[in-house]
Amino acid sequence: MNGKINDSFYMQLCLDAAWKYQGLTYPNPAVGSCIVDNNGKLVAVSSHKTSGSSHAELNVISKTLKLLGHTKIDKLETAEKKYQYILDNHNNIFKNFTIYVTLEPCNHKGKTPPCSILIKTLGFKKVIIGSMDLNEDASGGAKLLEDAGLEVKKGLMQNKCDSLLTPFKKWQENKPYIFFKLAISQNGVYSGGVISSLESRELVHKLRAKIDLLVIGGNTVRVDRPTLDCRLSGGKAPDVLIYSRRDDFDYDIPLFKVLGRKVFIKNSLNKMQEYRFIMIEGGEGMFEESIKVVDNILLFTAPIFKTGKTLQLDLKLKCLHTFKNNLDCIQWFKPF
Amino acid sequence: MNGKINDSFYMQLCLDAAWKYQGLTYPNPAVGSCIVDNNGKLVAVSSHKTSGSSHAELNVISKTLKLLGHTKIDKLETAEKKYQYILDNHNNIFKNFTIYVTLEPCNHKGKTPPCSILIKTLGFKKVIIGSMDLNEDASGGAKLLEDAGLEVKKGLMQNKCDSLLTPFKKWQENKPYIFFKLAISQNGVYSGGVISSLESRELVHKLRAKIDLLVIGGNTVRVDRPTLDCRLSGGKAPDVLIYSRRDDFDYDIPLFKVLGRKVFIKNSLNKMQEYRFIMIEGGEGMFEESIKVVDNILLFTAPIFKTGKTLQLDLKLKCLHTFKNNLDCIQWFKPF
Repeated sequence: MNGKINDSFYMQLCLDAAWKYQGLTYPNPAVGSCIVDNNGKLVAVSSHKTSGSSHAELNVISKTLKLLGHTKIDKLETAEKKYQYILDNHNNIFKNFTIYVTLEPCNHKGKTPPCSILIKTLGFKKVIIGSMDLNEDASGGAKLLEDAGLEVKKGLMQNKCDSLLTPFKKWQENKPYIFFKLAISQNGVYSGGVISSLESRELVHKLRAKIDLLVIGGNTVRVDRPTLDCRLSGGKAPDVLIYSRRDDFDYDIPLFKVLGRKVFIKNSLNKMQEYRFIMIEGGEGMFEESIKVVDNILLFTAPIFKTGKTLQLDLKLKCLHTFKNNLDCIQWFKPF
Repeated sequence: MNGKINDSFYMQLCLDAAWKYQGLTYPNPAVGSCIVDNNGKLVAVSSHKTSGSSHAELNVISKTLKLLGHTKIDKLETAEKKYQYILDNHNNIFKNFTIYVTLEPCNHKGKTPPCSILIKTLGFKKVIIGSMDLNEDASGGAKLLEDAGLEVKKGLMQNKCDSLLTPFKKWQENKPYIFFKLAISQNGVYSGGVISSLESRELVHKLRAKIDLLVIGGNTVRVDRPTLDCRLSGGKAPDVLIYSRRDDFDYDIPLFKVLGRKVFIKNSLNKMQEYRFIMIEGGEGMFEESIKVVDNILLFTAPIFKTGKTLQLDLKLKCLHTFKNNLDCIQWFKPF
């Protein structure tokens, strides 16, 4: 923040809200949205949280109604029901409000009704958009709003908003989206037991419930004897690819006993091409092997210094987003 | 941010603004402030920037007036002139506004006139305060405002606001405030040339211009042959204590040639007791030697992985604040 309270300030709030759900919305894009009322008061910030559920715009509009006493809206189970409740109860309170959204409001009825129609119907005055929707079916939202006479500003902080869309773009292109998850201490040590906080590990388990393949190095499996399931969050444990030259594993290692999962042991990463949403975990060897095919790196840095193994390699990164939970610093990177 | 737009949301903005100037305001505390108008609109955020200059409250009030067309206020050179300009020109626009401030508004005329009187005179409705002022001379601001009938909320996010005050408290106690500055890559490497960005190094040079002693390890001096001045920011270069068993230095190393500076070469850190505001720079040896006497650690983490030396020690930290500049992640820690 440069200290100015302007459109970029509000879009940054949307970005912050969106990045908290990066990966968790797959195959949908992570999207953040906020509403500023006709007096300039910031009313609510929200985001899209999981595929098939209400979009960021619907969530932030619902949150605003809830703050105005419509507590019932939280109990409506589907996006359709929320949408209809808003149409029935908005009472013109959104008249002349401004809505900020990191991605062009959708213009088609997918699993949820079109956000563009909702924004138009509620009488918003201004719509500030970061990225334009690349999905041919869903695009056209901005045009619909412009044609209806709303003030539409497109491309605000577009680069930052675009960087949220990598998983979504890969899905559109029918290609795997691959990210490396790493937890380290402030001095770069990744070895020697649990490093990140429970809150961070819960996020990792939520991500494991969304991915379809988890790739891990053979040494990590031998040393850590992990389960690699989603016990901290619930959800289906992903298939596992153990990247290893040897297949002499102790099949009592818990990861082999998780029901409904396939486990592959391969001396190649080719298996990844059969999957769409892939997280890689592991140490230095796995990192070096996979860095060339990785779209993003998700780094959890714990507030400790510790003795142990560090990664030794040269790599330029672009930091896409940094946020904090109660203990750890969480960063999304793109390798240059 | 938990997504709620409440007093804590606005206080967090004040904290973010204050931490950008941590160290630079010494011996004054770093303070942040923001103003929300009678409609709930966030109008401005600002902070105290350097000792002797206008306080955070005066800055955020000036910024608000400037946004309303009083561009002249930026050209007024002293806090007194700004203060008087505000009294002459406020035109009751602050009536019923809310001001947030990380530290109780001062109640005495120091180098600048009392903020408490200004807030009262302008007719603010609410004053939301983080930490209470420990300085006997300056305290009493909250009581004055309460007695004048303003709604005063004290102690909001007090722990977070208090953690800004360590340098100020040390100064009040007549003790040295000591922090360790370290620049590392994401994988923890601190060696092998410049690591942090120009923007980060400019901040370090600004800090060097404020400290009175810079402590550095003998090995770092021998290997890096540094200047340790403030050429990126301007300002007086600090005295230097080289912590070294041997005093066989090449006196052509630039740090010895900086005018107006004392350089000590000692096998002990006792010299620090003769100074008040001390930054330590160096590598593993210096870090291990000094960590027990350090109040805070200032860590710059660059968006790279690189090969080289890492710190190998065990240490629990409390992260006080995390922020980003254009490239680096900047964190203030307290050792447990």
